[in-house]
Amino acid sequence: MKNTQVLLRNRPTGEPSETDFEVVETEIPSPGPGQVLVRAHFLSLDPYMRGRMSDAKSYAKPVALGEVMEGATVGEVVESNDPRFGEGDLVAGSKGWQRFSVADGDALRKVDTGIAPLSTYTGLLGMPGLTAWVGLEDIGQPKPGETVVVSAASGAVGQVAGQIAKARGARVIGVAGGQAKCDFVVKELCFDACLDHRGDLDAQLDKACPDGIDVYWENVGGKTQHAVFPRFRDFGRMVMCGMISQYNTAPGADTSKAEPGPNLGAVVRKRLRIQGFIVFDTGWQRYGRFLAEMDGMIRAGQLKWKEDVVEGLERAPRAFIGLLRGENFGKLVVKI
Amino acid sequence: MKNTQVLLRNRPTGEPSETDFEVVETEIPSPGPGQVLVRAHFLSLDPYMRGRMSDAKSYAKPVALGEVMEGATVGEVVESNDPRFGEGDLVAGSKGWQRFSVADGDALRKVDTGIAPLSTYTGLLGMPGLTAWVGLEDIGQPKPGETVVVSAASGAVGQVAGQIAKARGARVIGVAGGQAKCDFVVKELCFDACLDHRGDLDAQLDKACPDGIDVYWENVGGKTQHAVFPRFRDFGRMVMCGMISQYNTAPGADTSKAEPGPNLGAVVRKRLRIQGFIVFDTGWQRYGRFLAEMDGMIRAGQLKWKEDVVEGLERAPRAFIGLLRGENFGKLVVKI
Repeated sequence: MKNTQVLLRNRPTGEPSETDFEVVETEIPSPGPGQVLVRAHFLSLDPYMRGRMSDAKSYAKPVALGEVMEGATVGEVVESNDPRFGEGDLVAGSKGWQRFSVADGDALRKVDTGIAPLSTYTGLLGMPGLTAWVGLEDIGQPKPGETVVVSAASGAVGQVAGQIAKARGARVIGVAGGQAKCDFVVKELCFDACLDHRGDLDAQLDKACPDGIDVYWENVGGKTQHAVFPRFRDFGRMVMCGMISQYNTAPGADTSKAEPGPNLGAVVRKRLRIQGFIVFDTGWQRYGRFLAEMDGMIRAGQLKWKEDVVEGLERAPRAFIGLLRGENFGKLVVKI
Repeated sequence: MKNTQVLLRNRPTGEPSETDFEVVETEIPSPGPGQVLVRAHFLSLDPYMRGRMSDAKSYAKPVALGEVMEGATVGEVVESNDPRFGEGDLVAGSKGWQRFSVADGDALRKVDTGIAPLSTYTGLLGMPGLTAWVGLEDIGQPKPGETVVVSAASGAVGQVAGQIAKARGARVIGVAGGQAKCDFVVKELCFDACLDHRGDLDAQLDKACPDGIDVYWENVGGKTQHAVFPRFRDFGRMVMCGMISQYNTAPGADTSKAEPGPNLGAVVRKRLRIQGFIVFDTGWQRYGRFLAEMDGMIRAGQLKWKEDVVEGLERAPRAFIGLLRGENFGKLVVKI
């Protein structure tokens, strides 16, 4: 049996193309002392990966050309030199766009599929869900009765952010692309409303948020940011999680082509807080608290989720390109 | 004897002119029960007053046309119906561009000229100094060894913000307009450097902050903001105190003419925090702590100040117009 890997071949300028990736067959690696060989069942595809394809200065090193693309997987232990893990254990923490990978035991954690299925540990109960929780804990801090707007509301992070805010008593308005996503956000996720950014966002925001916005969860940037920003109420918080609309034009630190942002005068006048965060900084240290809260919400019927499952590692490049275009519907995950 | 008052006559569009104000002679008011009549010795002139001349939505109500311009004064008690105050007491908390005013005793506080002269209670030990302290306490939070950039460094707030940051162990770089101000900031206030925004700010920042900026104290907006923003280090804080360069073009909430701000992608990547505040929200509740710290710094020789004293209330309109142009050198105060 062979390993399958997806390598980075070129650093794209603008939108990536499938030729920037290469799918190769390689030998299955052997675990060293203290290491574990994992066979991945699911690969998470996430917008941050666009940054890793660029060599512009950022918070993490880029993937080297010819190396395996960076990504998080969940799977099962095939061979273990760490006494904490045995063959067949289901684990998260394995890495890379590849079927087999070797990891230090310290990097892995067993997952409890009694809470939710294995695949959710790439999304709802993985990095994206943890991102939603951390951003609300540290920055958004929605209070009962406040109005929270969540962009990319049907996406991996937005789904969870909105439902947590809702569970904490806020009025939650999603923004998504197209009627199908908006219907899902309202009917399944139980947001109070969902606005279609392909329509007249100003008019929709006027109607959905007549008294303004207390918390904006920023996943997208661009025109949604410009429509939301003037509507902040005093002491509003803008949780800067991502700006996916910009990732193909200004990846990493290359802001020369970046669209201007809003004039910041309102930040003084309204005492706004605009703050960015990266879940990797302090998020995983709090994973236990996060998981307990998610478990409780699932049991209470307060937390739904939707995954967009793509079959086969060889389809990962095409699916990732679609993710940056907003073509996915729900958390994008590759079934390997 | 008569009172002298400066009234708001017109709501200026763009830069105010002297004809937007009117200096009038009126009767001296009489204090009612629990009230105190104060003869003002000094009137503070501050950029926020431009906002009060506009009826655009903001955090405070505009001055009505024909009413006395809003402002803080310090002076002496002339007549008191509050047992806590006696004739001749020196007090802060009186209001308005006027020689005589009546205030509730609760609004006034006696000042201790043993710490610094009476006029400083409009600046160093008044609202602007408190503003500097609150912004650093709540948002800037400079740590020893960090690099702090302070715009309008020779102004009422900038002087104090920079010296507090310096006392807390930061490296402090000022930005000011012209060589005289820059010399003062370095030689008298002991900032580590001061950059002239009339020169090539990018080149000066490259030299003065080769490793980037941890805290930026924003008083000005415009080109200084655009030069500083890309130089933030990870976890940088932008203390949004004011954007004086915009006040004549986009007062209050009328942002239609406002210059665009920086693209906010870096806020995510660098985990920046951009936060505004208004000293009136929670500042005065902490005045005692502030004053104790300033007293200690003055005694230790760590706190210098410069006032730009204009003689005569009738000159207040012209001086205020100059303040918005950056013509003042030091805290602008009118000796009445």
